[in-house]
Amino acid sequence: MSDYTAPIRDMQFVMRELADLDAVAGLPGCEEVSADLVDAILEEAGKFANGVLAPLNKIGDQEGAKWKDGEVTTAPGWIDAYRQFTEAGWTALASDPQYGGQGLPKLVSTAVMEMWKSANMAFSLCPMLTNGAIEALLLRGTDVQKDMYLPKMVSGEWTGTMNLTEPQAGSDLAAVRTRAEPQGDGTYKIFGQKIFITYGEHDLTDNIIHLVLARLPDAPEGVKGISLFVVPKFLVSADGSLGARNDVHCVSIEHKLGIHASPTCVLAFGDKGGAIGTLVGEANRGLEYMFIMMNEARFAVGMEGLALSERAYQHALQYAKDRVQGTEVGVRGGPKVNILHHPDVRRMLMSMKSQTEAMRALAYMVGAATDLAHLHPDDAVRAQNQAFVDLMIPVVKGWFTENSVDIASTGVQVHGGMGFIEETGAAQHLRDARITPIYEGTTAIQANDLIGRKIAREGGETIKGVIAGMRKVEAELGGVQDESFAAIRRTLGAGIEALEKAAGYIVATYGSDIKAAHVGSVPFLKLFGIVAGGWQMARAALVARRRLDEGSGDADFYRSKIVTARFYADHVLPQAHGLSYTVVNGAAGALALSEEAF
Amino acid sequence: MSDYTAPIRDMQFVMRELADLDAVAGLPGCEEVSADLVDAILEEAGKFANGVLAPLNKIGDQEGAKWKDGEVTTAPGWIDAYRQFTEAGWTALASDPQYGGQGLPKLVSTAVMEMWKSANMAFSLCPMLTNGAIEALLLRGTDVQKDMYLPKMVSGEWTGTMNLTEPQAGSDLAAVRTRAEPQGDGTYKIFGQKIFITYGEHDLTDNIIHLVLARLPDAPEGVKGISLFVVPKFLVSADGSLGARNDVHCVSIEHKLGIHASPTCVLAFGDKGGAIGTLVGEANRGLEYMFIMMNEARFAVGMEGLALSERAYQHALQYAKDRVQGTEVGVRGGPKVNILHHPDVRRMLMSMKSQTEAMRALAYMVGAATDLAHLHPDDAVRAQNQAFVDLMIPVVKGWFTENSVDIASTGVQVHGGMGFIEETGAAQHLRDARITPIYEGTTAIQANDLIGRKIAREGGETIKGVIAGMRKVEAELGGVQDESFAAIRRTLGAGIEALEKAAGYIVATYGSDIKAAHVGSVPFLKLFGIVAGGWQMARAALVARRRLDEGSGDADFYRSKIVTARFYADHVLPQAHGLSYTVVNGAAGALALSEEAF
Repeated sequence: MSDYTAPIRDMQFVMRELADLDAVAGLPGCEEVSADLVDAILEEAGKFANGVLAPLNKIGDQEGAKWKDGEVTTAPGWIDAYRQFTEAGWTALASDPQYGGQGLPKLVSTAVMEMWKSANMAFSLCPMLTNGAIEALLLRGTDVQKDMYLPKMVSGEWTGTMNLTEPQAGSDLAAVRTRAEPQGDGTYKIFGQKIFITYGEHDLTDNIIHLVLARLPDAPEGVKGISLFVVPKFLVSADGSLGARNDVHCVSIEHKLGIHASPTCVLAFGDKGGAIGTLVGEANRGLEYMFIMMNEARFAVGMEGLALSERAYQHALQYAKDRVQGTEVGVRGGPKVNILHHPDVRRMLMSMKSQTEAMRALAYMVGAATDLAHLHPDDAVRAQNQAFVDLMIPVVKGWFTENSVDIASTGVQVHGGMGFIEETGAAQHLRDARITPIYEGTTAIQANDLIGRKIAREGGETIKGVIAGMRKVEAELGGVQDESFAAIRRTLGAGIEALEKAAGYIVATYGSDIKAAHVGSVPFLKLFGIVAGGWQMARAALVARRRLDEGSGDADFYRSKIVTARFYADHVLPQAHGLSYTVVNGAAGALALSEEAF
Repeated sequence: MSDYTAPIRDMQFVMRELADLDAVAGLPGCEEVSADLVDAILEEAGKFANGVLAPLNKIGDQEGAKWKDGEVTTAPGWIDAYRQFTEAGWTALASDPQYGGQGLPKLVSTAVMEMWKSANMAFSLCPMLTNGAIEALLLRGTDVQKDMYLPKMVSGEWTGTMNLTEPQAGSDLAAVRTRAEPQGDGTYKIFGQKIFITYGEHDLTDNIIHLVLARLPDAPEGVKGISLFVVPKFLVSADGSLGARNDVHCVSIEHKLGIHASPTCVLAFGDKGGAIGTLVGEANRGLEYMFIMMNEARFAVGMEGLALSERAYQHALQYAKDRVQGTEVGVRGGPKVNILHHPDVRRMLMSMKSQTEAMRALAYMVGAATDLAHLHPDDAVRAQNQAFVDLMIPVVKGWFTENSVDIASTGVQVHGGMGFIEETGAAQHLRDARITPIYEGTTAIQANDLIGRKIAREGGETIKGVIAGMRKVEAELGGVQDESFAAIRRTLGAGIEALEKAAGYIVATYGSDIKAAHVGSVPFLKLFGIVAGGWQMARAALVARRRLDEGSGDADFYRSKIVTARFYADHVLPQAHGLSYTVVNGAAGALALSEEAF
């Protein structure tokens, strides 16, 4: 029932024909990347996702991770799947070759990451968090720290965690209270409690490397007094062998709405005299390091939104094809048909499909831009791409994840009454998706970052450039004599205009009335996402038209792409108008009530 | 954490100042209804909801109903709460006085029903289904059937169920296969399996009266060959005492996403020789009877959408008031504040609040119109109100329930990471809400009923009248010199125009291209709901303005109402434009793909 097949055809299309894989492959350091290599990687990753990870998704949901006496047992099959995952080298795909990684470009690792997350989101969180910890150490670790931890983390022999949140400090990291006491020998003793630590304890590996935010005794108040420490579960000797058990313990795991197989731990540091850790980078700059790594982590959570949407779509589509119910509307006495014949079921499936494809196109574009931003020899090209990435990350994180909740909910609806029965599996996708707009910064945090740091601070310069690019595509659409392209152009054009107006309001208002701007931030983020998705779908339709005109490639695929782009234009892009209105006019009503009036 | 307080103030406002309680109280048969009596009922119902039902809501979710060897055990506290519920007479509130009911108007029972459903939706389903069975027997039962079953069902001593669905016949009742064999003595033996039977088995009462759709041996194929039978769990003797156990057994209950405490049963009829039943009304007219009762049932499920939205709002609001996190935006170095100070949290709460109030106003208007349709002495007034009720029922059912999923999801988001933890309770509302757009006819079924039977069939006559009423309110708004009223008028006017355009398209297209019309049916239903909600909020704002100008009543309440109406106008009504566009233009893209292309 709950099978998954990696959508390799659409991935290839997006990588090659929208995100310019050739340009990425031409970057310094990407000499070994070729279309054939990428195809082989997608093929193998697809097999692993479909064959090993996807079948464990439901078992993981039903059995969950279990806590007993400080130990966490992962769901049945997890240990074996993790072993296979590391043996196949998947943990090392995007990592630095210096520490055993394969150093593949972001564009490629993005597609592979999508597969893991579609197949088994709860599983995928373990390598994802490990990657975050690897990044932190790469970024600011000492050579000793790097040599001690990185090779085994890149190989997957050890996993990593990120310890930020505390009960009183959720989104507000300024309130972190965990403390670090210098021992005079270069080590520190860490004391405090961290919550919501993903894979903070488990039975997959024999060591876990915790990255922990804490305060030094003389640290200033607030965000400028937080330092980053590395605290292994087992201390590591100079020869790499495991030493004493460190004083960090899992005191409980959460009972959650979804991702049951991903243990969400409460970790106690220093209950028995202090957890030994070492400082990463400079004192009091921990939050700054977190911010540098944030793009990576937020992009990855955005990918969960895409991945769960794809999974929910495949699930619902299969059901719609199998389920025979009723007769075709308007046909009296006709035969029973599958529910894909019913117009509203089609509308729901097209809505899931078109938004998923739009997100994929946008995500891979950001992936490719990340590669250009890191590796392109020209400073200006690097800077321009970095600005684009910085602008789009909150959209990828916020819009994709909000979408995934709606899309997974639509998937339940396609199943009718069966969607509400847990055995069917559709509800799991909704439950799993519901965390994604929350963790790694809620949608509001993304949206405020978007309108503040990414738009208002630079007077909207980068977004103006993006809008200019959208206008070019709009103009190109006008060159195609075809009803569908006229339809796409109509709502894309209106969407761009709505976006431009709202962006102008943000730039004009942010400095003078930040509260008013913040009321509109989430509607603005959704507006931006919708129009950016429409922009990419329009590009896809133009490419498809060109291929059809040339008579090259898979004509069925290209024809479907044009239909899907048109559906998006008729059903999704029209929302832009209302969102823009709300951004510009929505503050007064939202802010007028006194607290007592609620 | 998960407290509930019945929103009596807003209920009173809507009943008295929007839905014209006085007019309802003046109807024949409502002589005893007075404002004081209604206040006393709301007060007592509120106490029961807050004090008895609400505290069981989470226990019910956690423990659920349990099945063992054909018996179903309800969650802890259920038996006692049900006993108190019947002893207080709540089951009899709206029922026919001839059988022990109190015969209160729909407007009053609607408000009370809202409370039960907010407090504990899973519990409320038991009396709700019993009411459905009571209605069926009242409608077409013989005097013997009525005397045998109704007094004990009205008093709550026995409960009732509705048995429609079978595995192969979900939304498509034409496919019902359960058979009824006449025994020659006026009884029938029933054979077949029914699924999704709410409270089909439980331990609350010593008998359960099943209403069952089945086919007679000589019945025609399809919907015109289905008859309705009454099949008690225990046969009832002429003196009213319980006789032999009937051959209907619960073979399992479902493991569901939500409403865990409501047992959803698979019932086997006739595994041991045949379940004894008697025919209700005439043979082969069962589905017709179901349709007559459908308004009632769909309205009640729509009320679940309202009720869960209210509960989710109260839950999220309490958290927002309690949770201190971060400082006020734009205030450097200010004190920590509760999250209600953060503009996006306010936006979310106002969005929950304003839509909930809009739904309440619309629901109670439909409740009052139901009373007028049943009881008004003037034929024309009755007919006009019945037409309004028929038109609005699919909107109440479809729009409210779709909203409730979004609103409960927003409630989770307000809680941040805590929302994903089951102990918090916010996630339960989302899980419970998710069934409401599915059962008692999915949103698509509501929407197709709306555009077909309720609009296209009569050339849009009733909706044109409703739109004319909206236009009047729009004009009245123009008479108030105030920025908020200008804002409300702007988007209400645009919304009415969008609705009018879409309704015109439906009327013009339905006959010639029903598939195209069906693609737009759900967007049209949402559009209608949004504009109708805005219409009621505008009426509420006008009343509030009048009271403020007069200096009468609770000024704080009226000022909040105007702010809330304005928020709705700035944040919800602007969606009308895009939905209307999609209704009119959305068919081509939705229908173009071949099945193979999916």
